[in-house]
Amino acid sequence: MLSLFRFTCSVALQLMSALHMLNTAGLKTFLQLIVHRRDVINKLYSLGQRILSKQPFSVLLGTELDVFEPGTAILTLRVKDEIKQQHGFVHGGVVSYLADNALTFAGGSMLGDAVTSEYKINYLRPALGETLIARAHVVSSGANQAVCQCTVNACSDDKEQIVAVAQGTILKARPKA
Amino acid sequence: MLSLFRFTCSVALQLMSALHMLNTAGLKTFLQLIVHRRDVINKLYSLGQRILSKQPFSVLLGTELDVFEPGTAILTLRVKDEIKQQHGFVHGGVVSYLADNALTFAGGSMLGDAVTSEYKINYLRPALGETLIARAHVVSSGANQAVCQCTVNACSDDKEQIVAVAQGTILKARPKA
Amino acid sequence: MLSLFRFTCSVALQLMSALHMLNTAGLKTFLQLIVHRRDVINKLYSLGQRILSKQPFSVLLGTELDVFEPGTAILTLRVKDEIKQQHGFVHGGVVSYLADNALTFAGGSMLGDAVTSEYKINYLRPALGETLIARAHVVSSGANQAVCQCTVNACSDDKEQIVAVAQGTILKARPKA
Amino acid sequence: MLSLFRFTCSVALQLMSALHMLNTAGLKTFLQLIVHRRDVINKLYSLGQRILSKQPFSVLLGTELDVFEPGTAILTLRVKDEIKQQHGFVHGGVVSYLADNALTFAGGSMLGDAVTSEYKINYLRPALGETLIARAHVVSSGANQAVCQCTVNACSDDKEQIVAVAQGTILKARPKA
Repeated sequence: MLSLFRFTCSVALQLMSALHMLNTAGLKTFLQLIVHRRDVINKLYSLGQRILSKQPFSVLLGTELDVFEPGTAILTLRVKDEIKQQHGFVHGGVVSYLADNALTFAGGSMLGDAVTSEYKINYLRPALGETLIARAHVVSSGANQAVCQCTVNACSDDKEQIVAVAQGTILKARPKA
Repeated sequence: MLSLFRFTCSVALQLMSALHMLNTAGLKTFLQLIVHRRDVINKLYSLGQRILSKQPFSVLLGTELDVFEPGTAILTLRVKDEIKQQHGFVHGGVVSYLADNALTFAGGSMLGDAVTSEYKINYLRPALGETLIARAHVVSSGANQAVCQCTVNACSDDKEQIVAVAQGTILKARPKA
Repeated sequence: MLSLFRFTCSVALQLMSALHMLNTAGLKTFLQLIVHRRDVINKLYSLGQRILSKQPFSVLLGTELDVFEPGTAILTLRVKDEIKQQHGFVHGGVVSYLADNALTFAGGSMLGDAVTSEYKINYLRPALGETLIARAHVVSSGANQAVCQCTVNACSDDKEQIVAVAQGTILKARPKA
Repeated sequence: MLSLFRFTCSVALQLMSALHMLNTAGLKTFLQLIVHRRDVINKLYSLGQRILSKQPFSVLLGTELDVFEPGTAILTLRVKDEIKQQHGFVHGGVVSYLADNALTFAGGSMLGDAVTSEYKINYLRPALGETLIARAHVVSSGANQAVCQCTVNACSDDKEQIVAVAQGTILKARPKA
């Protein structure tokens, strides 16, 4: 109870202090920063979509890029019969593909053009539903490689369930001589 | 030099002893065993092909089952433009799918109907060529799960190169209630 | 700006509603629930400490159990010279051991007596500092197995840095016949 | 039967051709090559032992380097009570440590001073016995990294059983500025 009260007070204080800082001058800078960041993100997102549209395999499956920001990538894939296996679930290979691609995009958001070096995936339950969503983020990144994690969820009208979790290493692609 | 000589002698002795054992009676039993084993393998292979043909995603990609024997599975996939990524190589997700599927088949050869629980894959070089070959084998198997390893090679007319290596756990599929 | 305002309002509303619910009667139930949960956690923690103290290898290294709650385990290890490798960093094998053990404890918090079936670990930077902290949590668990993730951080007086991230499968231990 | 006969003939022909090539001059070169290779391996082995003896953690556990050749490393570890867990088996973390170290040595045999970037391990059965043997080999290596695989076996007087299998990426260590 006490800790809840302390938490309430602390949130309230932080909000007041945040609002206080946002006086006229500060507000302008703050808004400029937001606009600048949105600009960077928009450019990154366009780049991401261009790369995805140049992957014939992703075009074949119909993968879409939902979010592409520094350190984060979200890919979605509409479930069709032709990506399923013999039990009527989405083929594990498709779930893997989506996780792999999301990991590469997340790493690529920090490294530029990038490839997956390795990853592992744990399937948690059969992938059923209308859409798959792979959310990947960078855990740690350096000049040449990033370690990323990813969850894949299966969504239908009324629910969303995690179906797989992956972790891997993304390498900066070396330009060909 | 000495060890080479010893090796020669040992091989020669083993061959002589093997041929000696194969007298008329032994030969008959030996041939019957071979025929029986071929029978088991043929049935297993037909089962494997049926399962593969019921995976819409494998049909979409054109995956073929080359070998399906107790503890071993070999899958091949003809490389087409639509399975590539933006640099003109086969998409890592396709290499993963093939490895994943080969692992499941290898495990399934021991467990019956099976699913991949988890696996990891290391990409070794870009996948270029006319055909991908995934060769998987069981490292260790029990009643409910098998641990398998797999290599994926890319082949063209004049050469074959390893492009990925994978390791994973295959689980016996539980029948639905 | 608007979204910040919306967020502020939403937090404020949630807090008010939370406090409103905590009327005299509700408060009593709420406190009872907390006490009950604390009881469960205390018992679990005692069990965890007993298990750890029965692992001669953990005793040798001096591993301590900081947190052991349903779905979570935190292990710490004081860095001594004898757990290092040739460059003066903590040996990767020790980081792995700690991650592995934390994964097993996290899984075991849901499954009871448990063993690690498999895991993978990515080393992010050399492990330097005075203490290692492995924090593991359950991503998904069923009757017989749990998939868990873990981070290992290295701490010194003034900073804490992530040095490794791991993911693995924990199996319920089968009693010996 | 026919294929066995074909195999016999082929082996015999190869041996004859090998022996034919080994005329007096050829034999000398052949022997020199063997002596040179033994020299390289001896130097590598001494280096390996020096590195191992500088790992306080390996000294603590008593790890020994059995084989260290280009592309291969074999480490052994005598089982003592203090490396066990609560069920009386060798602690998984010790099996992991040994696999990790063997992977690094195998990679290092090609790359020079090296560190493990990541690996995954599947435990196949409880590790019981008198000695653990980790055999690692390089699957593929480039200028800066090698992908390696490793098996860990548990040996007692009368039998040897595989207890774990691992796969990982080894990186060339970058010299500190």
